[in-house]
Amino acid sequence: MDTAQDGDLIMLIAPEKKHMLFKLQRDAEMQTHQGVLRHNDIISTPYGSKIFTHLNTALWLLRPTLRDILIHTKRRSQIIFPKDIGYILLRLSIRPGSRVLEAGTGSGALTTALAWAVGSSGNVYTYDRRNDLQSVARKNLEKVDMLDRVTFYLSDISEGFHETEVDALFLDVPDPHNYLPQVRAALRNGGEFGALLPTTTQVSVLLEALSDFGFLQIDVCEILLRFYKPIPARLRPADKMIAHTGYLVFARPDFQG
Amino acid sequence: MDTAQDGDLIMLIAPEKKHMLFKLQRDAEMQTHQGVLRHNDIISTPYGSKIFTHLNTALWLLRPTLRDILIHTKRRSQIIFPKDIGYILLRLSIRPGSRVLEAGTGSGALTTALAWAVGSSGNVYTYDRRNDLQSVARKNLEKVDMLDRVTFYLSDISEGFHETEVDALFLDVPDPHNYLPQVRAALRNGGEFGALLPTTTQVSVLLEALSDFGFLQIDVCEILLRFYKPIPARLRPADKMIAHTGYLVFARPDFQG
Amino acid sequence: MDTAQDGDLIMLIAPEKKHMLFKLQRDAEMQTHQGVLRHNDIISTPYGSKIFTHLNTALWLLRPTLRDILIHTKRRSQIIFPKDIGYILLRLSIRPGSRVLEAGTGSGALTTALAWAVGSSGNVYTYDRRNDLQSVARKNLEKVDMLDRVTFYLSDISEGFHETEVDALFLDVPDPHNYLPQVRAALRNGGEFGALLPTTTQVSVLLEALSDFGFLQIDVCEILLRFYKPIPARLRPADKMIAHTGYLVFARPDFQG
Amino acid sequence: MDTAQDGDLIMLIAPEKKHMLFKLQRDAEMQTHQGVLRHNDIISTPYGSKIFTHLNTALWLLRPTLRDILIHTKRRSQIIFPKDIGYILLRLSIRPGSRVLEAGTGSGALTTALAWAVGSSGNVYTYDRRNDLQSVARKNLEKVDMLDRVTFYLSDISEGFHETEVDALFLDVPDPHNYLPQVRAALRNGGEFGALLPTTTQVSVLLEALSDFGFLQIDVCEILLRFYKPIPARLRPADKMIAHTGYLVFARPDFQG
Repeated sequence: MDTAQDGDLIMLIAPEKKHMLFKLQRDAEMQTHQGVLRHNDIISTPYGSKIFTHLNTALWLLRPTLRDILIHTKRRSQIIFPKDIGYILLRLSIRPGSRVLEAGTGSGALTTALAWAVGSSGNVYTYDRRNDLQSVARKNLEKVDMLDRVTFYLSDISEGFHETEVDALFLDVPDPHNYLPQVRAALRNGGEFGALLPTTTQVSVLLEALSDFGFLQIDVCEILLRFYKPIPARLRPADKMIAHTGYLVFARPDFQG
Repeated sequence: MDTAQDGDLIMLIAPEKKHMLFKLQRDAEMQTHQGVLRHNDIISTPYGSKIFTHLNTALWLLRPTLRDILIHTKRRSQIIFPKDIGYILLRLSIRPGSRVLEAGTGSGALTTALAWAVGSSGNVYTYDRRNDLQSVARKNLEKVDMLDRVTFYLSDISEGFHETEVDALFLDVPDPHNYLPQVRAALRNGGEFGALLPTTTQVSVLLEALSDFGFLQIDVCEILLRFYKPIPARLRPADKMIAHTGYLVFARPDFQG
Repeated sequence: MDTAQDGDLIMLIAPEKKHMLFKLQRDAEMQTHQGVLRHNDIISTPYGSKIFTHLNTALWLLRPTLRDILIHTKRRSQIIFPKDIGYILLRLSIRPGSRVLEAGTGSGALTTALAWAVGSSGNVYTYDRRNDLQSVARKNLEKVDMLDRVTFYLSDISEGFHETEVDALFLDVPDPHNYLPQVRAALRNGGEFGALLPTTTQVSVLLEALSDFGFLQIDVCEILLRFYKPIPARLRPADKMIAHTGYLVFARPDFQG
Repeated sequence: MDTAQDGDLIMLIAPEKKHMLFKLQRDAEMQTHQGVLRHNDIISTPYGSKIFTHLNTALWLLRPTLRDILIHTKRRSQIIFPKDIGYILLRLSIRPGSRVLEAGTGSGALTTALAWAVGSSGNVYTYDRRNDLQSVARKNLEKVDMLDRVTFYLSDISEGFHETEVDALFLDVPDPHNYLPQVRAALRNGGEFGALLPTTTQVSVLLEALSDFGFLQIDVCEILLRFYKPIPARLRPADKMIAHTGYLVFARPDFQG
């Protein structure tokens, strides 16, 4: 049976759906709205079962999924949403062992997902020029024990990337059109390039630059995710939804000898 | 430089966006609408470059991405769409080494994506009761060299699954509500369960069964993907889009000792 | 030039987009967050111009549009949204002189729009069994001076409607399937029937009843309205949107002699 | 009982949903895929009932709704879709007696809807510089007997409009930003201006011009209409939908003395 161990990243779900995500540490204690939690009481408890605070509140013990982790990413900047990340991973064709580059790091949500998907045999290279953001991202990656898969660079990407022949490259910066020569130098011919842009104006500017720099198979799309109220006899969509996060642009550079 | 090798799965893109996906085999030849292609002329060619038929048509040589592979899946049944697969992989929290179970196999599109994401250290267990479909799926997996990660079962899932403690389990069958005891027996406590259902009626029936069988964190959603015409000066959505593929339902079983 | 007159229904827009809708009355005064407003200072002012409070706040003077009126409908119940009302008017084929029946009245938003569209030569018949709601609706209609076009009935529609041969009939009640004989008795053969229903379950039940009672040309649809941030250099959708108001069902009864 | 009369515009629905829209004329005959139809056999038949061709095919006799008329508009150009027209009528606050101006006329779909809504006491002024389009529109309006409510101008709108103080004004032209002084001269202060534009680039250009020319309350939106398969036990959206027709822009000019 799968039980919680010292050092595991765990998730507890309290009544009214409040979530807590943290790492189990022998002998540690924790104040919560539901009373004191002693980590030792959680260690060796089977996942999927309930644990109880000293106030007798039931908390559901789970291994967090990638989405749980993304949603609980500590952030100092807007993060990329799970609905977009799922599609980005697919479009960038990420798999165990992939070498993938991204900029900017931001709070590290996409970094986390990329590190998750490339596995211990893969590499994520991430660039940002803001130290405050990147140190948040570093902590986020540390919490999920994936620091060893990620190389952080604190630099301005106009100076270029250190890598070459990466399998995929994603830019989450306001002006990706300014870095296409740097992208081409880092990305293998035919590799997957992606970008996320909030406004139509930015998309138009990037599209023009992609043509100029010999990218082909250019796609622009957006993803709308609509949740439903999960009540069998009254099934219907939720009242509100996210109307927009950003436009996704994908393309592949042609050959340059 | 990354060049095409004997045995590689390659993609060629002809003018007007016609795609071909096949495995390079030394000394093989191939008739295409653009003239004869000799595989030997492709071997050792850099990815991202153009090759030419004897009619002098330029074809763009690429490594197919996961999405390219999914789109070109040979099919005898409706396949799950890439927009949904990206989100399913995220919600099921698939990563290198995951053990994941799915039914039905169908033509194997989701099987392919799962095998891709779990890597050589992971396992996909796939069930179907139709031999004709599963043999199509088997060929699709063989083409992408991932047969060794996939265990195929030709059986009726009402008889249960052979695995226990799998990390995630996905049902793409018309009546998932009928197999929740079997799901619980195979899935680890707190593991991720998912299902795809085309109609609202099926969703309501599944929701009711999920409550009855002790599943929590139940989510229902749908994903809309809208493409844009990638013309910088006249950016706008495409005229038509897929309005519906299916509703996605996710849930996690609570603990049962 | 078009100027505001005693008795006009006017709209004032304050900074930060706060709107006020009221009827001009000679010698009346009004306390607002922007200071005291004397109606006499507004009378004879050209529409489209600014008026000033005694605190010197500029307020923009407009004739309210139908949508302005709908948005400011005093409500005790959920109202039908303008995005749906526009399409309902079109589908019900409302025009000057139409005779149209609706139930329930609710707070009277759709009643207002119907009265607006049928004009002084048309008739709206509206039914509700709750007096508290209907008296709100009555006040809303009075405010826009269209009471004379509307006949209010305080009754249970299971007892049938007083009208026959109406051009169109709309039900905004939770169980429209229970009143189809009554609908048929009131609606002319081939006339347009419509209903708004929040859940998929209700839609299924209504669809079944419509078949049973000889309705044809059955349509089910939903309308999504997405606003954009109107900033020329950074055009993009708003962050959030209404994900759901209700499903619209339309049908037409076949002939019964 | 409501029966079809000589001169009525009628709709016949054949099996497999083929629709025919035409005017009844005593003694006329008509070849259809379902056999010969004699108009005299239709005259005096109750609406909502079935008539039969000499091949004994049943055709359902209906008064066409505004939407039926719009869908069957003879066209030489892209027409505005009913989903957009419903919302435009609401936003432009059209009612019996309104004076409304539009350009270009195109094939006259919006012209028809405006004429329908303003009634016999209202006026629609429509401008186009292409005679071929406007003569199609004229025929469409003639067919529905609403020519008397519409004034057609064959002219270039850069030369301005003949009307002043119109209640609402809609531009369906590629470059509405070029005609805002003309719009202001024709539209009453605070009146509703609307435009339909297919691309984001056009929207940005118009937004900038609207600010420059003193328009306020600027809104940009788009409307998505999703149909469902109306099968009670298998309710679900249709497979495909229109992804885009155009962006709607609305605004109101401030006062200019």
